[in-house]
Amino acid sequence: MRHEPPWPDDDDMMRVAIEEARTGFAEGGVPVGAALATRTELLGSGHNERIQRHDPTAHGEIACLRAAGRRSSYAGTTLYTTLSPCPMCSGAIILFQIPRVVIGERRTYAGDVDFLRSHGIEVIVQADERCVALMSEFQRLSPQVWSEDIGGR
Amino acid sequence: MRHEPPWPDDDDMMRVAIEEARTGFAEGGVPVGAALATRTELLGSGHNERIQRHDPTAHGEIACLRAAGRRSSYAGTTLYTTLSPCPMCSGAIILFQIPRVVIGERRTYAGDVDFLRSHGIEVIVQADERCVALMSEFQRLSPQVWSEDIGGR
Repeated sequence: MRHEPPWPDDDDMMRVAIEEARTGFAEGGVPVGAALATRTELLGSGHNERIQRHDPTAHGEIACLRAAGRRSSYAGTTLYTTLSPCPMCSGAIILFQIPRVVIGERRTYAGDVDFLRSHGIEVIVQADERCVALMSEFQRLSPQVWSEDIGGR
Repeated sequence: MRHEPPWPDDDDMMRVAIEEARTGFAEGGVPVGAALATRTELLGSGHNERIQRHDPTAHGEIACLRAAGRRSSYAGTTLYTTLSPCPMCSGAIILFQIPRVVIGERRTYAGDVDFLRSHGIEVIVQADERCVALMSEFQRLSPQVWSEDIGGR
């Protein structure tokens, strides 16, 4: 008898998030992507569209949650994001009680992983070179837009 | 010589936020409205559109920030909201370093005003009966949607 892991395949789902980030980069946008999934289903994915939609709230995680639509519960879901979440996206994770977050990298933007963990959220931090490479390239090419996206920090 | 106050007229701007909330209520939505303004200019306003757009991230404050579009700085702005901000919207306020927030009421949803203040944000809490009446009516009519909107709390 095999026991299915309760979570999605992290490699597969991070690949979806990275594809979103690459799509954003190709569009000239901030290359952050995200995916929301249960063990058996991809519920939605999205990427940062600050530039594309002139929308400062369209971070990758927000675009992903928007794409996943209304849900009465996020139990059993994992949110994948190529970059450590900002305060707004961390707040969204806490609001909707998403139990598990997998972060592609936090070298180019640290976020506040302890804040998420203090709310009982399981946070897995990877050091994915694909994510680092995308963000490093964007920060080099567009430092002004990047600064704007994270509130001038 | 007259000294102009550095902030918008709070009564005028709260009226804009309440009009947004009423529009949302008339559309069958969650009646929370918001406005972003400088002393001299209304930058944007919006209302919760969870139901209307099937978008769980479209809280009033997020819709308002979206309507205001991209900004390199939020210095000198005040965010008006008819209801105390949730964790996601509080995170957005912190991310964009909005220096001042005026809250219509926090009786029907307390939010975390101390969290905002701990980030140096000036928070003014009113007890506006117009805001309380709208939210109370909505919570009575649609308790399930309301619960969904605040993550099942």
